[in-house]
Amino acid sequence: MLEQFFGSETILNFKVLHKCSSSRARVCKLETAHGGFKTPVFMPVGTQGSVKALSPEDLEEAGVKIILANTYHLYLRPGHGIVEKLGGLHAFMNWKGPILTDSGGYQVYSLAKLRSISEEGVTFQSHIDGSRHFLGPEEAIDVQRALGSDIIMAFDECVPYPADYEYVLQSVRLTSLWAKRCLEQKRGSNQDIFGIVQGGIYGDLREMSARALVEMGFDGYALGGLSVGEDMETRQKIIRETINFLPEGKPVYLMGVGKPEDIVEAVSLGVDVFDCVMPTRNARNGTLFTSRGKLTIKNSSYADDGNPVDEDCGCYTCTHYSRAYLRHLFMANELLAYRLNSIHNIYYYSHLMEDICNAIRDDRLEEFRDNFYSRLNHLTT
Amino acid sequence: MLEQFFGSETILNFKVLHKCSSSRARVCKLETAHGGFKTPVFMPVGTQGSVKALSPEDLEEAGVKIILANTYHLYLRPGHGIVEKLGGLHAFMNWKGPILTDSGGYQVYSLAKLRSISEEGVTFQSHIDGSRHFLGPEEAIDVQRALGSDIIMAFDECVPYPADYEYVLQSVRLTSLWAKRCLEQKRGSNQDIFGIVQGGIYGDLREMSARALVEMGFDGYALGGLSVGEDMETRQKIIRETINFLPEGKPVYLMGVGKPEDIVEAVSLGVDVFDCVMPTRNARNGTLFTSRGKLTIKNSSYADDGNPVDEDCGCYTCTHYSRAYLRHLFMANELLAYRLNSIHNIYYYSHLMEDICNAIRDDRLEEFRDNFYSRLNHLTT
Repeated sequence: MLEQFFGSETILNFKVLHKCSSSRARVCKLETAHGGFKTPVFMPVGTQGSVKALSPEDLEEAGVKIILANTYHLYLRPGHGIVEKLGGLHAFMNWKGPILTDSGGYQVYSLAKLRSISEEGVTFQSHIDGSRHFLGPEEAIDVQRALGSDIIMAFDECVPYPADYEYVLQSVRLTSLWAKRCLEQKRGSNQDIFGIVQGGIYGDLREMSARALVEMGFDGYALGGLSVGEDMETRQKIIRETINFLPEGKPVYLMGVGKPEDIVEAVSLGVDVFDCVMPTRNARNGTLFTSRGKLTIKNSSYADDGNPVDEDCGCYTCTHYSRAYLRHLFMANELLAYRLNSIHNIYYYSHLMEDICNAIRDDRLEEFRDNFYSRLNHLTT
Repeated sequence: MLEQFFGSETILNFKVLHKCSSSRARVCKLETAHGGFKTPVFMPVGTQGSVKALSPEDLEEAGVKIILANTYHLYLRPGHGIVEKLGGLHAFMNWKGPILTDSGGYQVYSLAKLRSISEEGVTFQSHIDGSRHFLGPEEAIDVQRALGSDIIMAFDECVPYPADYEYVLQSVRLTSLWAKRCLEQKRGSNQDIFGIVQGGIYGDLREMSARALVEMGFDGYALGGLSVGEDMETRQKIIRETINFLPEGKPVYLMGVGKPEDIVEAVSLGVDVFDCVMPTRNARNGTLFTSRGKLTIKNSSYADDGNPVDEDCGCYTCTHYSRAYLRHLFMANELLAYRLNSIHNIYYYSHLMEDICNAIRDDRLEEFRDNFYSRLNHLTT
């Protein structure tokens, strides 16, 4: 009965290349007007049209294939009209690769003040200057069309966690209504649009949301409203069940997740696309990811440590600087610290995804996972 | 009668290549163990072992030939012992070109608390944590030997401005005494040492200081205690007069100066080497140098300006980003703003020096100066 929703394995710009024999993990190819890339893929977050502390060349060298930018932020500052006038977001920020923009839905709930929601959309106050604004599904698509991103997201309502069943039910209905209006709104000829499955932690509401969106026919599907406070087991269950209602021939994007372990688990459940502020935010806090666990660079044990952050890492930071220098920069509040740390963490995430792709391709994902977990938390200082 | 102090035009590692026919300006070649460069040269300031917001590759691409690092800061944090253990400052910070370190003298007076000066040296409290320290001439050289910089500076007393004649006289005597002890202290085999001429605004004390140092025989001579509040005319006069007492065959370094106009003027008076925090500090404040004057990037007129900061500039920032994007990054407090602005300002200074060298070489410095001043303050927005 689910097969009716399964599309072809090969559609326009998305192709399944390899399937894992022991899980739903898969390697796919996703093509956009600004280049193609393999999935599972991780998108660093360039909230305001800049992945914090990094240049486009830094991203490219660190193995980044696609970045995410936030519609809410760019709408407020500098304004999508300015970005459009200057040739779109790619030209504005000098990033030649693919860009996905979110719809602004999440930030309207998490950042803006004095929201009021109606069937039309959301009226809110800017977190920057308190000015009043309105974003509805049509406006969210208009803004994303002006930004010129390759993948745009439907405008959704993000329910808080926890939320009661009746509230989430109404919210799913609203998100479905908005999704339809998003699909009907004119977008750029090269823009793919993803729908966002909501439904909180209620399996039947997730199913209702997924079925409604799939019937509308999006280019991809995102799982929204997760990583907001629910436990790992609940999240895994929601992902596992919801993916059953999504067509195999379309990409699945788990929004805002997350930790390397979360990604490794979600890949096995069939997720293709990830984003999270964790690598860049942690970098700025001095927390560095390594194959042996997280390293807190300000620890005094690194004060005269001539080793790189991770001996097995080939990033610019690890091949040019010692832990001692990175600790010094961090303790001395030197701006270079943020860049060098961010380069390392983004490289770690990019290469984690590459390793995952290779493991799926060679059908050794279980071995990869065992190895991944056995190395974690074995950082020798 | 001055000729007795004039050395050969060709000594060990310093050679006069071209002389201006209408001023004391000259192009020279200075060789160090980490490479040679032409003067007049500008040294960006890497106070804590990092030119703020920039990587060594950024500096190289922007045309930087030599950088300055601060002994006082590196002594306090991370400590010269750590830098030495990790292979010296070049290896520590991954900068392969020449480095000049100051002596710590200036910072002990401008930053540290509770100083007490004796003939031995200076006892002071760290500006970071209040801990007590002692730096004298021997210690200053020891620290710089550990850092492994190519050019080291003698430990001097910087007199405040204004200061009365008697105080400055005593100070010059102390600085001369310390200079002798610095020369006698063991330094690295590849380290050149510069003496620092003090004397405030008193011509006869400047002469006394210069003659004393020249008699000791340093590898180069710096003019210290300028750009501390005196007017431009007074500073010019001091530079012009003091240089008469310095040997033509040795480099002259004007410490802490300065604005592009100050540099153009001082070159004509015979100065070879400059340093200043201005290009990097201004960059972080959003003030950008151009051939037509300074540009304040946060001005709203740049909000949708698709032009580069300076159409005539070939730096990475100007060839890849618009004023509108730079303004956006700055207004949004994006870290990339500091790097892109710093790249531009450092490139501006490096290429100003290159243009000056070429003008001297072609004996058209006057024409260069006329052109330089006529373009300034003609920024069209």
